[in-house]
Amino acid sequence: MTREDQLIERIRRAVPSVWGPSKRGVRLGIGHDAALLAAGGGFGWAVSCDAFLEGIHFFADRHPPDSVGYKSLARAASDLVAMGAKPAYFLLTLGLPAKRTKGWLENFLRGVARAARSLDMRLIGGDTTKARWITANLTVFGRLETESVVGRTGARPGDRLYVSGTLGRAQLGLELMRRGYSRKRALAPQLAPHLYPVPPVELGMWLVRNRVPSAMMDLSDGLSTDLTRLCRASGVGARIRAERIPAVSISPLVRKILGHAAPALTSRKMALDGGDDYQLLFAVPPRRQPKLRKAPGFSRLTCIGETTRDRRVLIRDEHGRTRRLDPAGWDPFRQKRPKKT
Amino acid sequence: MTREDQLIERIRRAVPSVWGPSKRGVRLGIGHDAALLAAGGGFGWAVSCDAFLEGIHFFADRHPPDSVGYKSLARAASDLVAMGAKPAYFLLTLGLPAKRTKGWLENFLRGVARAARSLDMRLIGGDTTKARWITANLTVFGRLETESVVGRTGARPGDRLYVSGTLGRAQLGLELMRRGYSRKRALAPQLAPHLYPVPPVELGMWLVRNRVPSAMMDLSDGLSTDLTRLCRASGVGARIRAERIPAVSISPLVRKILGHAAPALTSRKMALDGGDDYQLLFAVPPRRQPKLRKAPGFSRLTCIGETTRDRRVLIRDEHGRTRRLDPAGWDPFRQKRPKKT
Repeated sequence: MTREDQLIERIRRAVPSVWGPSKRGVRLGIGHDAALLAAGGGFGWAVSCDAFLEGIHFFADRHPPDSVGYKSLARAASDLVAMGAKPAYFLLTLGLPAKRTKGWLENFLRGVARAARSLDMRLIGGDTTKARWITANLTVFGRLETESVVGRTGARPGDRLYVSGTLGRAQLGLELMRRGYSRKRALAPQLAPHLYPVPPVELGMWLVRNRVPSAMMDLSDGLSTDLTRLCRASGVGARIRAERIPAVSISPLVRKILGHAAPALTSRKMALDGGDDYQLLFAVPPRRQPKLRKAPGFSRLTCIGETTRDRRVLIRDEHGRTRRLDPAGWDPFRQKRPKKT
Repeated sequence: MTREDQLIERIRRAVPSVWGPSKRGVRLGIGHDAALLAAGGGFGWAVSCDAFLEGIHFFADRHPPDSVGYKSLARAASDLVAMGAKPAYFLLTLGLPAKRTKGWLENFLRGVARAARSLDMRLIGGDTTKARWITANLTVFGRLETESVVGRTGARPGDRLYVSGTLGRAQLGLELMRRGYSRKRALAPQLAPHLYPVPPVELGMWLVRNRVPSAMMDLSDGLSTDLTRLCRASGVGARIRAERIPAVSISPLVRKILGHAAPALTSRKMALDGGDDYQLLFAVPPRRQPKLRKAPGFSRLTCIGETTRDRRVLIRDEHGRTRRLDPAGWDPFRQKRPKKT
């Protein structure tokens, strides 16, 4: 378990909580990307919240303020996408130092508005306060227009594991930004996945409506960490193949900027441990695989392996060597400490 | 308008938002204590969020951690009470410095659990992260089991203005705590309203179920500020009488602690401008006043004046002098600046 997961465990044990369906209108409680509240007629409201903090999730002197605004909403909405819900509404809690209430705020709000329009979401409330550092918290609401519910706990041994899109792209953008290339035009395509991620809304809705996945979550903290979480929640293990992972490609120009001597910055390592991709990870029982061909953007889905009865999470490289996959993705409580290799 | 209200206005103008009923399931949007989402069969989910930040809303070296946990949930739930909803579920977003993840967290969670049990609420999700300062954000969900909706906008000229409970009690507790009396047994009753506020859940539910108020909100930032907000939202003014305001009483012992020379700390000033009481402020059309007698805790309700067509908010003192009531309650963006008198 990551340190963050240990903390979540402590909270769950200490505070009265709801896991599954309750008489009082909860269809799915704690332990998934979002909770589900009943909305009548078999429909549901998916609800989730996400903090976005200066100095932890972004740097006010590096990140363009409109990206901070855009991303704060897009990454929260990604949790709704993972439940197959259609993003609809949000509450914005915003804590600001006095010096951020002028131009910085204008641009931040422009970014929020851009994400709201592109995701078809509307603001319905929030809270504002002064704060020592910029503190955003987004609570998001999505409509789940189907009675089928997919959380993290439904994967069974033998299910196929899929990911959407290409992984490691956000990490690559972050690395470029760290090196001071945040405004370089020629690198805009490489920076965009980090600054302006686009969660696959249509895909998430289609998958749940068609009852294809047995379990699903969004990839926010890196495949190695999130796959470990999905397996743990479902009580299964996994066996994935390294060469199948759709990893970001690194052009010679970008490789030069990153530095040839950076061993952690291979394409594969970024795809395994890089956070912020906001793509989907899901398990599909073999009998439902044929259905998947009709999914929107099927060509951008990749089967990377399968779940197993043995609860270990294993990865096999192209030389046939199998090792345990350590959850080495983003963990706020492990920042600045060396990563295990 | 307070500075906080100006900031909220800017956010509303910049970001696509929903005010009133929408086709997609919103019954009440931005501009009230909570938004209302449709939940089928005429029922609704009231949703609201509240930030609780170290150094702004509490001081980690002064406030007992279990009070920080308790209050973070109770004050958020107060927004549900103002909508007549029954508090039911919550999401907890928690940002913590590493040094707060041990004993401080244990006690914080004990306080959250205590509030959850006393309010009959359950945790259904959240987000955790490292942070530079303790950062809590509570998103709360309440069931509104009636089709009637009461927000801030429905007051009409001539409605009677009521408050529940006694005002200024939380401010008095805060002043004692500031002077280092947070653990003194003999002062526990005076400290409790600040450390462990109890929102009037039954009263809020009864009022909305019986369609008594034309407008309602909770008193979180002080009567002078919140009354101004209610009037502005409803497009009315108000005329209240100072001697009618149910103000906290100050014992000789407490007066001695506060210091006789503290002019801002009169009983009435605390009742007008003190925040954190989490009582209810509501407007009642004259024809519905007789109904009010059956309200739970009717004896603790006080009529303090009435709304007017003239949009000014006026207060008349016991000498018959009338003056404008300045919104001089809690405004995070005005901290440390001298209050207007």
